[in-house]
Amino acid sequence: MATLGAQKKHKVTIVGSGNWGTTMSKLVAENVKAHPQLFEETVNMWVYEEEVTIPKDSRHYDPASDKPQKLSELFNKVHENVKYLPNITIPSNVVANPDVVDSCKNSTILIFVLPHQFIPRVCDQLAGKIVPYARAICCTKGIDVSEKGVRLMSEAIGMRLNIYCGALSGANIASEIAQEKYSETTVAYDPPPMDSRAPTPSGSPTSSQVDLISPSKPVPSARSARLKPLPNEYPPLSHENVRKLFHRPYFHVRIVDDVAGVSLGGALKNIIALGAGFVDGLGWGDNAKAAVMRVGILEMVKFGKYFFPDSSKSTTFTEESCGVADVVTSCMGGRNFRCAKMAIEQGKTVFEIEQEVLNGQKLQGTSTAYEVNSFLTQEGKEHEFPLFTAVYNILEKKAKPEDIPQLIEPKD
Amino acid sequence: MATLGAQKKHKVTIVGSGNWGTTMSKLVAENVKAHPQLFEETVNMWVYEEEVTIPKDSRHYDPASDKPQKLSELFNKVHENVKYLPNITIPSNVVANPDVVDSCKNSTILIFVLPHQFIPRVCDQLAGKIVPYARAICCTKGIDVSEKGVRLMSEAIGMRLNIYCGALSGANIASEIAQEKYSETTVAYDPPPMDSRAPTPSGSPTSSQVDLISPSKPVPSARSARLKPLPNEYPPLSHENVRKLFHRPYFHVRIVDDVAGVSLGGALKNIIALGAGFVDGLGWGDNAKAAVMRVGILEMVKFGKYFFPDSSKSTTFTEESCGVADVVTSCMGGRNFRCAKMAIEQGKTVFEIEQEVLNGQKLQGTSTAYEVNSFLTQEGKEHEFPLFTAVYNILEKKAKPEDIPQLIEPKD
Repeated sequence: MATLGAQKKHKVTIVGSGNWGTTMSKLVAENVKAHPQLFEETVNMWVYEEEVTIPKDSRHYDPASDKPQKLSELFNKVHENVKYLPNITIPSNVVANPDVVDSCKNSTILIFVLPHQFIPRVCDQLAGKIVPYARAICCTKGIDVSEKGVRLMSEAIGMRLNIYCGALSGANIASEIAQEKYSETTVAYDPPPMDSRAPTPSGSPTSSQVDLISPSKPVPSARSARLKPLPNEYPPLSHENVRKLFHRPYFHVRIVDDVAGVSLGGALKNIIALGAGFVDGLGWGDNAKAAVMRVGILEMVKFGKYFFPDSSKSTTFTEESCGVADVVTSCMGGRNFRCAKMAIEQGKTVFEIEQEVLNGQKLQGTSTAYEVNSFLTQEGKEHEFPLFTAVYNILEKKAKPEDIPQLIEPKD
Repeated sequence: MATLGAQKKHKVTIVGSGNWGTTMSKLVAENVKAHPQLFEETVNMWVYEEEVTIPKDSRHYDPASDKPQKLSELFNKVHENVKYLPNITIPSNVVANPDVVDSCKNSTILIFVLPHQFIPRVCDQLAGKIVPYARAICCTKGIDVSEKGVRLMSEAIGMRLNIYCGALSGANIASEIAQEKYSETTVAYDPPPMDSRAPTPSGSPTSSQVDLISPSKPVPSARSARLKPLPNEYPPLSHENVRKLFHRPYFHVRIVDDVAGVSLGGALKNIIALGAGFVDGLGWGDNAKAAVMRVGILEMVKFGKYFFPDSSKSTTFTEESCGVADVVTSCMGGRNFRCAKMAIEQGKTVFEIEQEVLNGQKLQGTSTAYEVNSFLTQEGKEHEFPLFTAVYNILEKKAKPEDIPQLIEPKD
């Protein structure tokens, strides 16, 4: 019924080919084959071209051809991303393309999985060259916080391309999902009113059937009114159909409306993970770690409520994979947690540990903690987020990890 | 202001002296000294009398007196529970008493910290011999589930003694708290209307000031109407004053009204911990563990809503220490988690592991899983609690741990 009258199918491009992007291409490629009435079989993947040499321990290593090759060509030959996701076979309907414009040009669904610093540049390259009624899903975690406010990655993509962009986030360690170990995620997808199609005559459509307006939704903004509705020839991008693009037996998807909450969860959890690492580094045990996590989840809820009052829901943080579950995973063994813990154990700063063990890479949690603090200070709300503020102050050496209990205790 | 007109002080007894009971005596003893206007300085602790020999590695070991001594006498001499909480000094205002009736006879506050199988017998010994307007707090985790329904430990105590009983539960590993490592807990305290004192004339009292009726509370039941109000000579047992009894700089207390939720959290988390142990034993990693925890917390919420519709609140599970934080702690390294994980890794049943490693003790999670399943089956609600049901079926060898993702996937 969902495809009634649809003559066209959705074409999907994965914009990005790192560890998470390649994993995403695997599960999307499996799903388009499972739903041939909705999606075209070939999935494009934009690969940032680089020269790679197959490592000696790879199953694709061949001494006769032991020289650098183009990553995209190698991928299309061996159906494996030997550099970023070794030893995982990607279905052959994923086609790597080093030209970002060409890889996206006919696609109605663009899945962004890029390191967040590349998003503006890539979007600028794509602007005006994509299908005008395309929809995007942003799988990049993080937010841009400045003194001007909080900008979600999905908003940045949507505004630069003038299309609707949802978000995907959850307790998702890519390598585990690539091995088909069980995992969950949350997809936020809630396009504003723009569709020209009228509701079906026989009763109201349910929100899971069509991507139309629900009565409770606000009046379309000037921007959303400029968004192009999906032509009738395409199957609707309903919650049900979006779910079919991502859900696998080993990757369970829950769809929500709250794009802000899903995006905030993926960013703010890194501050919490630093806090959990600090108390764990003190040897304070599991009670203390669980307390920091609990307080952190409530600060996420409060942050969403203050800064996205119309959209963010507390249940996104307390009940969904992008909230509570991602906090749990990040505080059990994530990078931010481990570096904060090592810093305390070794009597060093987190920045020193970052330099020593991350090989030039940066922790997301530290920059998010600084950005969030600068924003909260400007809004005069620092004291209403005592854990976020404590983590910032510890990074700044203005507070000690031992002070955390006192700092996060509610003031009566 | 809270003590205006009060001439008497509350006398406290800790009913129980194991690992958690002795820890509780420490923090309560510190608090009664900090609030001498509310509480009598001496805290009684009922000790189930046994003969103990001081271990050779104890700081109290003395070769000259290397013979069995009475635990209560030894405690009162060395101010340490050498058997159940070694190496922790308990304040000298805690007085051990092996006679349960004598230890409680003048106390207005009874804190129960007994293994749950002892509760009925001890309450029967105490019935009719305590202050009739005493109040209790139950720190014993667990619930009694039978085909007849769910009975909270606090209800069992309250009904047998005909007094009001609240509950305390949280992410509380006793030995960590005894070492003053930072921790949080949740106290549920919400006595029904019974107090003879009228509200203050000038405006309504706030709920944190008096233990009176809030307008939204249901009409008192026949049983609650029989409860004796606290005489005016005593400081009111308001949320504020109850918090003063438990809160320490290293033990943060949040007070809620939801006794059912706090009690259910402490019991149902053990089923979740078994489920988390099963997937961890399969080597499925942190995504899978976090997913099981998330689904489990939502089943807690649903269980509370079905079986305690008037009292249980979803936020108790998703936002308080007794819910989300206790689930986290239990699934990081609790006994139920560890035994379930070992069972899968070694290809044995949980019951075999229980026998091998627990030295005659029993896991709470297995019995709770069986009791909850028997109750859900009788109510025809087994399928609405897929994780609880999956854990039961795995224990019963009717399902395999590998089936968990499929079993807990919502059926559309």
